[in-house]
Amino acid sequence: MIVILKPEATESLVKDIVSQIESLGLQAHLSRGQFRTVIGVVGEEVKVDPEHLKSINGVEQVVPIMKPYKLASREFHKEDTVIEIACPQGGVVKVGGPHCVAIAGPCAAEDEAMVFQLAREVKQAGATVLRGGAYKPRTSPYSFQGHGEDALKWLRDAGRENNMPVITEVMDTRHVQIIEKYTDIFQIGARNMQNFNLLFEIGRTRKPVVLKRGLAGSISEWLMSAEYVLSQGNRQVILCERGIKTFEQSLRYTLDLSAVPVVKQLSHLPIIVDPSHAAGDRQYVPSLARAAIAAGADGVMVECHDNPAKAMCDGPQALLPDVFASLMKDLIAIAGVLRRSFSGAADSTSRQSAGAAMGHNVF
Amino acid sequence: MIVILKPEATESLVKDIVSQIESLGLQAHLSRGQFRTVIGVVGEEVKVDPEHLKSINGVEQVVPIMKPYKLASREFHKEDTVIEIACPQGGVVKVGGPHCVAIAGPCAAEDEAMVFQLAREVKQAGATVLRGGAYKPRTSPYSFQGHGEDALKWLRDAGRENNMPVITEVMDTRHVQIIEKYTDIFQIGARNMQNFNLLFEIGRTRKPVVLKRGLAGSISEWLMSAEYVLSQGNRQVILCERGIKTFEQSLRYTLDLSAVPVVKQLSHLPIIVDPSHAAGDRQYVPSLARAAIAAGADGVMVECHDNPAKAMCDGPQALLPDVFASLMKDLIAIAGVLRRSFSGAADSTSRQSAGAAMGHNVF
Amino acid sequence: MIVILKPEATESLVKDIVSQIESLGLQAHLSRGQFRTVIGVVGEEVKVDPEHLKSINGVEQVVPIMKPYKLASREFHKEDTVIEIACPQGGVVKVGGPHCVAIAGPCAAEDEAMVFQLAREVKQAGATVLRGGAYKPRTSPYSFQGHGEDALKWLRDAGRENNMPVITEVMDTRHVQIIEKYTDIFQIGARNMQNFNLLFEIGRTRKPVVLKRGLAGSISEWLMSAEYVLSQGNRQVILCERGIKTFEQSLRYTLDLSAVPVVKQLSHLPIIVDPSHAAGDRQYVPSLARAAIAAGADGVMVECHDNPAKAMCDGPQALLPDVFASLMKDLIAIAGVLRRSFSGAADSTSRQSAGAAMGHNVF
Amino acid sequence: MIVILKPEATESLVKDIVSQIESLGLQAHLSRGQFRTVIGVVGEEVKVDPEHLKSINGVEQVVPIMKPYKLASREFHKEDTVIEIACPQGGVVKVGGPHCVAIAGPCAAEDEAMVFQLAREVKQAGATVLRGGAYKPRTSPYSFQGHGEDALKWLRDAGRENNMPVITEVMDTRHVQIIEKYTDIFQIGARNMQNFNLLFEIGRTRKPVVLKRGLAGSISEWLMSAEYVLSQGNRQVILCERGIKTFEQSLRYTLDLSAVPVVKQLSHLPIIVDPSHAAGDRQYVPSLARAAIAAGADGVMVECHDNPAKAMCDGPQALLPDVFASLMKDLIAIAGVLRRSFSGAADSTSRQSAGAAMGHNVF
Repeated sequence: MIVILKPEATESLVKDIVSQIESLGLQAHLSRGQFRTVIGVVGEEVKVDPEHLKSINGVEQVVPIMKPYKLASREFHKEDTVIEIACPQGGVVKVGGPHCVAIAGPCAAEDEAMVFQLAREVKQAGATVLRGGAYKPRTSPYSFQGHGEDALKWLRDAGRENNMPVITEVMDTRHVQIIEKYTDIFQIGARNMQNFNLLFEIGRTRKPVVLKRGLAGSISEWLMSAEYVLSQGNRQVILCERGIKTFEQSLRYTLDLSAVPVVKQLSHLPIIVDPSHAAGDRQYVPSLARAAIAAGADGVMVECHDNPAKAMCDGPQALLPDVFASLMKDLIAIAGVLRRSFSGAADSTSRQSAGAAMGHNVF
Repeated sequence: MIVILKPEATESLVKDIVSQIESLGLQAHLSRGQFRTVIGVVGEEVKVDPEHLKSINGVEQVVPIMKPYKLASREFHKEDTVIEIACPQGGVVKVGGPHCVAIAGPCAAEDEAMVFQLAREVKQAGATVLRGGAYKPRTSPYSFQGHGEDALKWLRDAGRENNMPVITEVMDTRHVQIIEKYTDIFQIGARNMQNFNLLFEIGRTRKPVVLKRGLAGSISEWLMSAEYVLSQGNRQVILCERGIKTFEQSLRYTLDLSAVPVVKQLSHLPIIVDPSHAAGDRQYVPSLARAAIAAGADGVMVECHDNPAKAMCDGPQALLPDVFASLMKDLIAIAGVLRRSFSGAADSTSRQSAGAAMGHNVF
Repeated sequence: MIVILKPEATESLVKDIVSQIESLGLQAHLSRGQFRTVIGVVGEEVKVDPEHLKSINGVEQVVPIMKPYKLASREFHKEDTVIEIACPQGGVVKVGGPHCVAIAGPCAAEDEAMVFQLAREVKQAGATVLRGGAYKPRTSPYSFQGHGEDALKWLRDAGRENNMPVITEVMDTRHVQIIEKYTDIFQIGARNMQNFNLLFEIGRTRKPVVLKRGLAGSISEWLMSAEYVLSQGNRQVILCERGIKTFEQSLRYTLDLSAVPVVKQLSHLPIIVDPSHAAGDRQYVPSLARAAIAAGADGVMVECHDNPAKAMCDGPQALLPDVFASLMKDLIAIAGVLRRSFSGAADSTSRQSAGAAMGHNVF
Repeated sequence: MIVILKPEATESLVKDIVSQIESLGLQAHLSRGQFRTVIGVVGEEVKVDPEHLKSINGVEQVVPIMKPYKLASREFHKEDTVIEIACPQGGVVKVGGPHCVAIAGPCAAEDEAMVFQLAREVKQAGATVLRGGAYKPRTSPYSFQGHGEDALKWLRDAGRENNMPVITEVMDTRHVQIIEKYTDIFQIGARNMQNFNLLFEIGRTRKPVVLKRGLAGSISEWLMSAEYVLSQGNRQVILCERGIKTFEQSLRYTLDLSAVPVVKQLSHLPIIVDPSHAAGDRQYVPSLARAAIAAGADGVMVECHDNPAKAMCDGPQALLPDVFASLMKDLIAIAGVLRRSFSGAADSTSRQSAGAAMGHNVF
């Protein structure tokens, strides 16, 4: 940490700050410049609260050198984390390192039949994890809020039938226990990226979590939210970029694909991309999904529906299953250019040969 | 609602959409232009989900005419809502209409003595509501998270001693009951503006709530969040602008004071401003607080501390009580220019005469 | 300047950077921390290009300590700059320090009669500088682009009749000479904040300039643009906040009133506010103008029109002159609370006594 | 265009607006809803200025149906525009449709030797157009501003030697003529996207122009700027996405790759991407370049330098030529997945066979 003093800072202020730093078992290095004095703090800077130092009259700026997160940081964990998710009938889906994941399914689990139908279709198209909403965060209190535990059962059963792990969103600390009974992966939505108590609770479970980036979440804040989960012992965090709020309003949000290489540089955690919520309009989803994989993302999460005009939520962004199937072919090819693969895709009988071939030339 | 079709939309699509609209008991008015067909929907448009219509191939754009919120809208409630908060020893603090409120206190309730000391000081300076954090939302899992129920007791008791209602933040649906025992006003923080289950739970209490704007919350989304609370029967919602995320980073957030007149135009609910969290730096708080009242805000919420360099959180933004006292004089004078007053300020013995005088020339 | 090295930086890299720094006549102070080495650069850091240092492999971050602007910085010019603009028939209008300015007039100078009519009305209402567009920056190539030199003449003549200095926008380096013949103050619009050649050209004139903030201009970039003008010898720069682009779209732009106290802290230059272009809608202009003065701005620039529905540009944001007159009363009163005054307003016969009185009790 | 009236709009206002519309030779269709009256304008809506209608008291909202641009719109020009740029020694480089372009070179043309050296290297790596700055827009007036006409000569000559067309930036209407003498393609930089006089001047030349998106430019405003050029008869406009200003500050700007498919949907003009300026840091350039091509961009523009730590500007973002060469292989492969090709790359002897092969299987 570096403390930059105001030009008018007195000698006694300098002494006072130095002694505060030393009383914490740290060393203070002074540089007196022509215009300002600068104090370098040497040691574990996590011991000093930068806000305390900033609150002192005479301090102009405090520049942290270390990242505020540790468990999420690549500095202390050089290798990519690879998360393995057990499939209900055996096998695992891997996310991270050389492994990309394709997650697909409906926005909301609307009824049992549609969940089973879509699960089969997205599996056939190459998805290896099934998504679906049971508790839905809706902007309006008058909108459909999800089918709750019934939906959780449909998803679990459809996942079992197709040997796909299931992911569903948790919005409330009171729901963690019931959702944990049914789901393989928790999803924390963009609006809950800084719901800190929820992060703590999910951190105390032992199931993987997809942590979406908040609409106003800086990459640093997002990694701090991951740190909340990691700090409780749950090390299976997958980050998910899904768009931020900017002045550009031609799509619902602005997908920040720069986040992919930046997160890779700062953290060892896998990062996937949700192009559906970013775009809010199906015609842009394939382009953004391709760009995500080319940017180096560890997977995509895509919403599908057999009849978008009848969807109970987010119909405009849902892909028809056959469009998704065609997209998957492009994604697999682009991943191949980067010497990566959608590992689980090989389990799908329809893709057996391609998958096997890919298995050879990739790692 | 107006449905604009793509140039290539067929006649049978037009018929199909018209019949969908009519089957909901609404009327469809067709305008065939040179380049496009436009369908006007007449009737209670809340019956049609714009997403359903947007999901149909051939539909280019759906333009809602009515606002998506109703209880929060000025269209259905012309008069300003004035919220009255009972003081522990008698009297009320009013917010809205001609009444401005001054809320002040520490970021966190750090210990019993400091809460009592600050309560006396901010009361003396002209504040009529006491703020203080018991459960703190912190970016880092390693930061101080608040003293919980102990802090709630200190605040309640300090409020009683000074005849000030108390406001404190609620972050978790599981804490609503315990906080309700002690507080007079709930605060929902910026990061929970779209924590929809929390909004529902607070909507089921009968205590006023200050609902802060999220860092990425559009004014329309914010009013939808107010609608969540209102829809459950709690009509005592006070909005609070506290800055949004923008590219400008010289202060922590960008305080959007335009939100004050825009909210006044769209809604009957009172709106106050928190300059402390927006600025994150005490030297800018007085300027922003003055601007807030001049813009027409119904009050301010300001953080104070006797020794900011020792504060357990947000020290850099805390005002010393005497700076706050001096600011209050400006705020009262500016409110006077707009023919408004800090009504409760009259209860403070030290301001008795000024308050009384102001009482006459205001309404 | 502080250079933070990556954890893996070698000893020879450290030596190399130190010798680069010393070869520029500067001193390098080394701090070796537990995780990283930090190099403090002591001396006139303007001699080192931070980009050179950032380009070196092994450098993680370069933190400037000094601001990148010098002539615009309060650090080297402690007192507020007060700009005096000569009025055509004698007297001066002052901007900065305790003096606020009210600039008003039409968006575009549409014809001679309207310019004269509006000039009289805004003068009567309390404005002391007349604004009007001769060359208009328009989003569409098919829109009205301004009356050019004719408009310049109308403005000059209407200014003379009412003893008001005139301000008009310059968009093109080729127009500087012709506009200089007629105007008292140049305006550089938001879209030209980083039109660097135009800044140089205006810097070579000796007339005051109002430099608007760009829609994506950080405060630091804006002060660098002021530095462009100052560096050429023209020290009469008035900054003008007029809104930035953010995700909030209920008004045209988001007026960033925090910029007022931040600029006051960083720079000695006066700063005024244009609420008309920020709002794009006249119903919000008075609220924002009041907030601007309460925030400490050195004046406002407001668009007026006698018949907004017939205006050739920006009709929706134009105030009727009588609304502007009523607004001016509030602005004068709010300025009074802050112990400031609209000095030139005293020249208007209709405000003589109030102005005179104010003159006494202010400084 | 649709005009939505306020609930309180009177019958006589409705009549007045209808007669205004009809007097322009257009038809007005009335829809009277339960809460509001809506007027649909049928005919060439470009005849009505929406601002006039918005300025009328009683009008709540005006919704345009047609885009404000026409020549840039895909609605009136269904096929992709393919721009052909003649090479100095024969042959053409094509941009748009199935053809991707790779533009590379130094930020600034620093001296003759470096320009020639880099031209050879980037040509060898697969670039077919040479970029280089002669007049540089710099944030600071104290920074290197470019070598002007000398630089233009070096670029022209290095382009000739390598049979590469040249692109360089124009910042000032006074420089159009001199730059036109030397360059094959004009570049209009982000800061000049709304320098309307410059757009007009370039529109009057007959050389292709790369029009960068402004840092606060919405896609609609950007296409309006293209319309400025097109309206003067120059139909050879290539759009270039290079990042927008957002709250996220880990890279210099946020590259908005959604702009690629959105522009493709709205317009027939080619769109390329500049990952170098968006990132400001070379380690992120390859990832973003790959994503750009995968998103469907018609090419990339990348900055290279042989010794970035000595670069006169933007060293941190410059790729070493061999890194660029390796990136080009990925880009060609990803383009192949989308059935597109870097057509000109086939001219490079080193890529002859790959290029030729690609030529067969693509179109």
